[in-house]
Amino acid sequence: MSEAYLSRGVSAEKTDVHNAVKTLDKGVFKGAFCTLMPDPTGNEEYCSAMHADGAGTKSSLAYIKFKETGDYTAFSDIAQDSMVMNLDDLLCVGATEGFIMSNTIGRNAHRVDGKAIANVIKGYSAFVEKMRKYGVDITMCGGETADVGDLVQTLIVDSTFFVRMRRDHVINCDNIKAGDVIVGFASSGQAVYEDKYNAGMGSNGLTAARHLLLSHEYASKYPETFSNTIPDAQVYCGNYKFTDILPGTNVTVGDAILSPTRTYAPIVKEILEAKREAVHGMVHCTGGGQVKCKNFGIGLHYIKDNLFDVPPLFKAIGENSDVGTAEMYRIFNMGHRLEVFCSPEDADFMIKTAEKYGVEAKVVGRVEASDTGVNKVTIKHNGEEFNY
Amino acid sequence: MSEAYLSRGVSAEKTDVHNAVKTLDKGVFKGAFCTLMPDPTGNEEYCSAMHADGAGTKSSLAYIKFKETGDYTAFSDIAQDSMVMNLDDLLCVGATEGFIMSNTIGRNAHRVDGKAIANVIKGYSAFVEKMRKYGVDITMCGGETADVGDLVQTLIVDSTFFVRMRRDHVINCDNIKAGDVIVGFASSGQAVYEDKYNAGMGSNGLTAARHLLLSHEYASKYPETFSNTIPDAQVYCGNYKFTDILPGTNVTVGDAILSPTRTYAPIVKEILEAKREAVHGMVHCTGGGQVKCKNFGIGLHYIKDNLFDVPPLFKAIGENSDVGTAEMYRIFNMGHRLEVFCSPEDADFMIKTAEKYGVEAKVVGRVEASDTGVNKVTIKHNGEEFNY
Repeated sequence: MSEAYLSRGVSAEKTDVHNAVKTLDKGVFKGAFCTLMPDPTGNEEYCSAMHADGAGTKSSLAYIKFKETGDYTAFSDIAQDSMVMNLDDLLCVGATEGFIMSNTIGRNAHRVDGKAIANVIKGYSAFVEKMRKYGVDITMCGGETADVGDLVQTLIVDSTFFVRMRRDHVINCDNIKAGDVIVGFASSGQAVYEDKYNAGMGSNGLTAARHLLLSHEYASKYPETFSNTIPDAQVYCGNYKFTDILPGTNVTVGDAILSPTRTYAPIVKEILEAKREAVHGMVHCTGGGQVKCKNFGIGLHYIKDNLFDVPPLFKAIGENSDVGTAEMYRIFNMGHRLEVFCSPEDADFMIKTAEKYGVEAKVVGRVEASDTGVNKVTIKHNGEEFNY
Repeated sequence: MSEAYLSRGVSAEKTDVHNAVKTLDKGVFKGAFCTLMPDPTGNEEYCSAMHADGAGTKSSLAYIKFKETGDYTAFSDIAQDSMVMNLDDLLCVGATEGFIMSNTIGRNAHRVDGKAIANVIKGYSAFVEKMRKYGVDITMCGGETADVGDLVQTLIVDSTFFVRMRRDHVINCDNIKAGDVIVGFASSGQAVYEDKYNAGMGSNGLTAARHLLLSHEYASKYPETFSNTIPDAQVYCGNYKFTDILPGTNVTVGDAILSPTRTYAPIVKEILEAKREAVHGMVHCTGGGQVKCKNFGIGLHYIKDNLFDVPPLFKAIGENSDVGTAEMYRIFNMGHRLEVFCSPEDADFMIKTAEKYGVEAKVVGRVEASDTGVNKVTIKHNGEEFNY
């Protein structure tokens, strides 16, 4: 693990946190992507999940955009980030409807005013409306906006989802098996339900992306957007201004990083309604990136040897930093943020369904039995090979 | 509203936030203390709530305690604060069991390590265990600990609760009526389910309490525990060291402020199981303090003229600041953090039930019709009168 990354106070795999929570109940499907609990009504045919996540440090970049432009709508997309980090995790257990949601927003009221909060709330409503058109219903149940300026320098936007679902609908990664293929769903491009080009960022690796790409001039301009525990040489040490065009695209570097986290919900809903039994497992490539799958399945070797071309945003991060490629795959999704594990004969259906929604998909790899019995991941790309 | 308070970036009533969220759905019982939504199973006899809140800036004081003592258990009680801010809000709609909970923890990993997080998680488990003994079951459903050092200077600990309940069990503050009495339940003292003296703080007003009581030496020692948007003269401008004894008590000022937020759940559960119909309304005196009730009920004048003696902690804050008494009642609970509205003949039952659990209770006031038709609050105490 690169010193530079850890020195910014972020761990891609959060080993210490996993150790801290390891005694907690793993739920009723140990192999599922999210913890599933008994149904609160006591119905044994159902189970439920309560899931929390947020937009991470992307909100500090939205804050910079607001400061640079005066445009309050800079805060709106953060709501989508905060929601999709939950929604797409829950897709991976097979939940696609009946979501209930609450949010927790913390702010420094000296810097983030009511109009900014109103724009975050509008962002929540807009995304909920959009998903409703695709049959993915999310009920907003209020939330809490706390004035915690002594803790939060700018703004933090977290969401919590609750959902209940039939137990026989649960996707359990324990069912992934040797012989399966891995279908990857592109993280960048423009889905039919997106208004603009999505650079593919999601809401993981934002601390690294911001500091590695943006120019040091933002360090003195916006000291409230980073921790003073980061050595000065590692603060905003990149080559780009917020408004520079990202090479290989028509969007600015700032807007590329701020691309709202793409959801795969409309696609996954259609896949599961048509062929639920064909999906052996699903992994949302968030913290841990392309190595995340290592935590799921039993005694498997995931071989990814046909990955997407690395999207321009991740290419720029790699070229403008000393983060090695092996680690890039652990911090960023690098091209696809959702993967479905299925039999080879079902891959085409997954791909075709994604394409209907304007999302590129392809077989990015395969699953073999692990020779050691322990899960392994191998990435082969552009003539290099990385083993995890 | 005192300039000094606002200048610390905290608004007791968060008017701008309320405006920002006012378009959101008010739920199926408009007058209830928390937003209640339809039951996710579609059962029309039931409704549900999803509720978010947290420990606020109390965690930055826990951090100071840890830094001063090296004792990691300093972080444990923050979990109780974060939970009770939800649990006791939900008591006020009549929910006392079947809670499902998730948490969202944000930290600067340079300052708050895995051992600290493990202690927060232990605090969650310990409180859940304790409540289970009183028939208040809370299922922990995991959560998210995010490394967001660029946003969070030390540690933020939020929780979200989900609960479903029978609609005919809902306590709706619209049922509070002229002629009712207000029974207040003490916020300080030692309940039978508490291990030590509770100074009554709860998790509101922590920014004010910390800065108004603690000595300026902590400003230079722990700059990571406050916002640099606060003018220096208002940072830790009090007369006490963390370890000084709070006048009128046997505990230190630091531990007094850190008293874990008292829950009233065991008491309210017993009250509702025995005489649910006697409870016309319940208010958790959090943000807005003794004026919070103004937001509930229809066309009422709340007259509080027999309040508890102001507990030593709030007395010290008042004596060591320029915050006027009228505003103290709006920022702090000042003696009771839960109030039940009921007919005069039922007050004795409420009081006796509280006393069984070692919590002092008494009739603190009464409800009259408002002469203007608009809700009003009058506080008469120690020869002074305040109207809100």
